[in-house]
Amino acid sequence: MNASASFAGLEVGFDVPALPGMNEADIQTPCLILDLDALERNIRKMGDYAKAHGMRHRAHGKMHKSVDVLKLQMEMGGAIGVCCQKVSEAEVFARAGIKDILVSNQVRDAAKIDRLARLPKLGARIIVCVDDRANVSDLSAAAQRHGTTIECFVEIDCGAGRCGVKTTEEVVDIAQAIAASPGLSFAGLQAYQGAMQHMDSYEARKAKLDAAIAQVADATAGLKAVGLDPALVSGGGTGSYYFESGSGVYNELQCGSYAFMDADYGRIQDKDGKRIDQGEWENSLFILTSVMSHAKSHLAVVDAGLKAQSVDSGLPFVYGRDDVKYIKCSDEHGVVEDPDGVLKINEKLKLVPGHCDPTCNVHDWYVGVRNGKVETLWPVSARGKAY
Amino acid sequence: MNASASFAGLEVGFDVPALPGMNEADIQTPCLILDLDALERNIRKMGDYAKAHGMRHRAHGKMHKSVDVLKLQMEMGGAIGVCCQKVSEAEVFARAGIKDILVSNQVRDAAKIDRLARLPKLGARIIVCVDDRANVSDLSAAAQRHGTTIECFVEIDCGAGRCGVKTTEEVVDIAQAIAASPGLSFAGLQAYQGAMQHMDSYEARKAKLDAAIAQVADATAGLKAVGLDPALVSGGGTGSYYFESGSGVYNELQCGSYAFMDADYGRIQDKDGKRIDQGEWENSLFILTSVMSHAKSHLAVVDAGLKAQSVDSGLPFVYGRDDVKYIKCSDEHGVVEDPDGVLKINEKLKLVPGHCDPTCNVHDWYVGVRNGKVETLWPVSARGKAY
Repeated sequence: MNASASFAGLEVGFDVPALPGMNEADIQTPCLILDLDALERNIRKMGDYAKAHGMRHRAHGKMHKSVDVLKLQMEMGGAIGVCCQKVSEAEVFARAGIKDILVSNQVRDAAKIDRLARLPKLGARIIVCVDDRANVSDLSAAAQRHGTTIECFVEIDCGAGRCGVKTTEEVVDIAQAIAASPGLSFAGLQAYQGAMQHMDSYEARKAKLDAAIAQVADATAGLKAVGLDPALVSGGGTGSYYFESGSGVYNELQCGSYAFMDADYGRIQDKDGKRIDQGEWENSLFILTSVMSHAKSHLAVVDAGLKAQSVDSGLPFVYGRDDVKYIKCSDEHGVVEDPDGVLKINEKLKLVPGHCDPTCNVHDWYVGVRNGKVETLWPVSARGKAY
Repeated sequence: MNASASFAGLEVGFDVPALPGMNEADIQTPCLILDLDALERNIRKMGDYAKAHGMRHRAHGKMHKSVDVLKLQMEMGGAIGVCCQKVSEAEVFARAGIKDILVSNQVRDAAKIDRLARLPKLGARIIVCVDDRANVSDLSAAAQRHGTTIECFVEIDCGAGRCGVKTTEEVVDIAQAIAASPGLSFAGLQAYQGAMQHMDSYEARKAKLDAAIAQVADATAGLKAVGLDPALVSGGGTGSYYFESGSGVYNELQCGSYAFMDADYGRIQDKDGKRIDQGEWENSLFILTSVMSHAKSHLAVVDAGLKAQSVDSGLPFVYGRDDVKYIKCSDEHGVVEDPDGVLKINEKLKLVPGHCDPTCNVHDWYVGVRNGKVETLWPVSARGKAY
């Protein structure tokens, strides 16, 4: 790749952590790096799985917020489009030419609804989630105002305790309101069980999903009974996609974290009791960090702290090292236990973040690495798009 | 203010959460808002305190990462300059014309040292912290290469257990190395006790600071004995500045959080046992958030989750409301307990973040509000400057 052509004017260390063509050893830290081989293997594997099971895979863009990663998921993994959580994220993906976009969330503010209603003009199919009849008329009015169609999923709360309605009666009521509203189209169901994804035990996760599937099947039957067969039933994450795929009820997956992995997801177990980061998925995302102080012989201080990651789901672990341990975090520092004093100043460590989604959101760039070289530099296209 | 003149082309909701002149009610959420009256009162109060006690106040820019907030601290609060933690932050402040900049951290990577050594060419006094003799020769070589002077503080670990040396012997040894190195100048001591700042009890904090002051006094005496009287002895935070000010040893404060306050700092007590956010400092920083789902009568869902804040120091609290409580957080959602079902869809709440520093770092803008109007829009100038 020709760094000067694509990245003219960007200064390494101020604007960007690296440029294509650089040696991996020269990357400025802290930053996010992607092991491109591992990433591609994860993407192909999920693509093969979805295809073999007759499922559409709508990759979750809220995880990586990257147009480039999404395009890889579409080209290499057969993903049919994207889901995301915010109108401003949907705008980023629509402007980048993505044609099938689900905002897997409620949009209630008048200005945001107006922006959403304009998005189909960019040539994208736009789907949004609804859990309140009152929202239907606002969405309909905006779509009519702009001469567009907004497709709507009714969102079911199938155990996450967040957005969504709980009963089939409510689902049918909202779906009928959507179907009767000009400018709107009833497209199906959103039923993502977020609360169980990180339960360590496969059996515990299965029990939660069995309950969710029964609930979604009941809602589907209720809809069919009034002539509103849902074309799409969408949900599933990295901790559950095999349950939705075998359900006979869902036909669309929304997995995101499988592509990068993180420490919290890595701990959950597959059906044989094995951690999913030891076989099912590979760690492809790392926070690259450097030792910048070792004034105490048993403690090293590295340059990745709270502003290089989110620790909501626990501290990162040091990839491939059993001899040192990341034990404490402040704004710009990480304290690494180094009982044998093996770490050297400027030595680099790869950290697997506790939780990939909010960690990616504090960075501007992904540095794509292969065979010791920086191959690509991808912007975190929708970073900070929270509106 | 004329929004169209200063902010031409920025689209509310995609690029920015608001524009000057808008009503507070029209701000797009989630975003950071500043109560400008409260902010200015905090800044004046700290300025008056420092002046009355003969202390220099070097405002900590790592907290807000904002050139505009810093300029207010200098103009309205008499701050003499800034401290920050990263070379890339120092570059932002130097490019903005700030003349006295301390990188209160170690800089060890060769490329970063080179960037640091170039900064005095922008007309700024540049100070950096050192805790390892091996660093001295690298800094000296870079300063000579660029024909500049890098001033150096020796960093003392006075209890935080992070960077810094512990003994007076080590301090003197490094200071002598600095003083003997061309291109470098020994400027004093960095002695920030970060580990005690958030201890709730005033007496517990005082005990930690008494120990730190004794350690710094010993180091100062050791330096004087070899003819290296430290011109500046710098430290102090929002939980300790009165101890450093009365010590007779320190002459420079590095307070940051006092300007914005947060939930974690707010809980600590003053000498009368009163929370410091109930008298000493005002909350001026809030995450503005909107209710976007209320499908369950006792739970509202708001649009500020992990990507609008850092929860490393606990969840935010809802400002000025005892009837509702922010109880859970996922990537893009906050769950608010609303036992009486009083919250309405699109109703806005002000959240006081658990920890202001890493929360500011996930936002691009501060929306400055006064009397119900958006008065200013300030970029988080050094957001993401982690290198």
